Amino acid sequence: MSDPALLAVDWGTTALRGALLAADGTVLAEHAAPRGLLSIPPGGWADAFDAEFGAWRAAYPGLPCLMAGMVGSRQGWVEAAYCPCPAGAADLATQLLWVQPGRVAIVPGLSTEQGGLPDVMRGEETQVVGALQLLGLAEAESVNLVLPGTHSKWVTVRSGRITGFATHLTGECYALLRQQSILARTLPADDAAWVPEAFDRGVAQARQPGGLLHHLFSVRTLALFDRLDAAGLACYLSGLVIGEELRAQLAAHLPLAEVAAAQPVVLIGSAALTARYQRALAAWSVPTQVLGAEATWFGLAALAGTLRG
Amino acid sequence: MSDPALLAVDWGTTALRGALLAADGTVLAEHAAPRGLLSIPPGGWADAFDAEFGAWRAAYPGLPCLMAGMVGSRQGWVEAAYCPCPAGAADLATQLLWVQPGRVAIVPGLSTEQGGLPDVMRGEETQVVGALQLLGLAEAESVNLVLPGTHSKWVTVRSGRITGFATHLTGECYALLRQQSILARTLPADDAAWVPEAFDRGVAQARQPGGLLHHLFSVRTLALFDRLDAAGLACYLSGLVIGEELRAQLAAHLPLAEVAAAQPVVLIGSAALTARYQRALAAWSVPTQVLGAEATWFGLAALAGTLRG
Repeated sequence: MSDPALLAVDWGTTALRGALLAADGTVLAEHAAPRGLLSIPPGGWADAFDAEFGAWRAAYPGLPCLMAGMVGSRQGWVEAAYCPCPAGAADLATQLLWVQPGRVAIVPGLSTEQGGLPDVMRGEETQVVGALQLLGLAEAESVNLVLPGTHSKWVTVRSGRITGFATHLTGECYALLRQQSILARTLPADDAAWVPEAFDRGVAQARQPGGLLHHLFSVRTLALFDRLDAAGLACYLSGLVIGEELRAQLAAHLPLAEVAAAQPVVLIGSAALTARYQRALAAWSVPTQVLGAEATWFGLAALAGTLRG
Repeated sequence: MSDPALLAVDWGTTALRGALLAADGTVLAEHAAPRGLLSIPPGGWADAFDAEFGAWRAAYPGLPCLMAGMVGSRQGWVEAAYCPCPAGAADLATQLLWVQPGRVAIVPGLSTEQGGLPDVMRGEETQVVGALQLLGLAEAESVNLVLPGTHSKWVTVRSGRITGFATHLTGECYALLRQQSILARTLPADDAAWVPEAFDRGVAQARQPGGLLHHLFSVRTLALFDRLDAAGLACYLSGLVIGEELRAQLAAHLPLAEVAAAQPVVLIGSAALTARYQRALAAWSVPTQVLGAEATWFGLAALAGTLRG
């Protein structure tokens, strides 16, 4: 293979993955392990890094390494202070935290403040930088991005810089309700079955008055009166929580009119999850485009390019 | 003691309690056991009933018994069909489900329908009947009641009949978030500390745009930036979820103007929980009055009186 220009590492809460990248972001080799923040003992980060990436580092001495994600949190390798918004690729690059000077650095997370309350991200800033690069939107006037997941992020970018964002606990609440609440009793064991009309019904219900806490009880009563089967109920619940996120977000932080005037909303995440968000956003007539996990590699490559440039 | 007129039983999901009542609802003796639906094997209800209340039944042969709560659910002793709204004490009394004809009966739950979705209660209907009796509101034109708890109920009564109600999963969501979510990591082990200004801050935040799923993340960021201590964070979270219930309910099913025109809202529940709801409702300038668990005994006594009368 051609010589790598960067060792890119995405080190999160439950897993780590790394890639050898060419200068243009092309992936030359990849490596993944179930070795995230939760499984690394205090003081064990350098050893874990050597164990996972020692061979690559020996094969390419002097290769720079950039890391994004929870590796930079308070419980991580070294705490990388949050970079305040607005911030773009150049801001992130100048505020890298060097673990091994000139060789290994952590990308800082971002912080923002809205209505007297802070919000934070770690890792998503790199995905956003990568997405803008990949889609040729690094200089676009207005781009809105959604990174669905455990803690879903809505990100506004103006002229290449992240100006603000909002986190929603959607994925985590769904998992708790799905597995641990009274609603779990009538739901199937897994999310294998996809019932789009039940999902749509949940999204539509979320747009009605009454509030999420009330709408959730309908998962139970629809089961009680046999009006929706188990697979449908799980998709209905998913529609309720994703729909609530969209309803609240489009009514508050990111007015629908503003979204409609910008580029199609960029969704970054797993295929299954972005498909659900794409479907739900279509209920608001919001056009979307989708990217996967490759955004992180392009983001780290772009930050490395900023360093070289 | 004077001769009892009724054996009243409140048989719920996790516990059972019973009382010997005089004809006017005065409690002559009480008995409680941690023996609810979850701990009774299929077919074991009659045995459990005899074990807990056999001595009283032997001492007062012929004493009628009325039971309310999950004992009438599909997983209960016998399923008592939901009585559709509108329904008052007379409707409940004529639709009692007799387990032992003329001697032991289960009070039916209630069902209602709103926007194509069913809602149900079991046990709360009896508390409402008792509360109206206790407060001299059995004929009042308009009374609104809130029964906070795992599944909080908002009940509208017009001229003595329950015309509708709405359930909110507030208590259950609070417990899940409090104990099982990422937020739990920065919360104290128990809810012993009461920080009213943190609770108020949560209620106020719930009234801001952004949505519950977004507001929840501020529990984490306020901890991350050391802006609220652990005890305060738990009360803030409580304020966020209770505030969301009130915000949604007062905006949708029970418009604030309608509440203001009626009797003070009747809160029925534990002292600690009704105090929180009283405080939160005060943020909307909604006057309240509070009742405790005695409402169930007065409700069952009133239903027994309807039978006699």
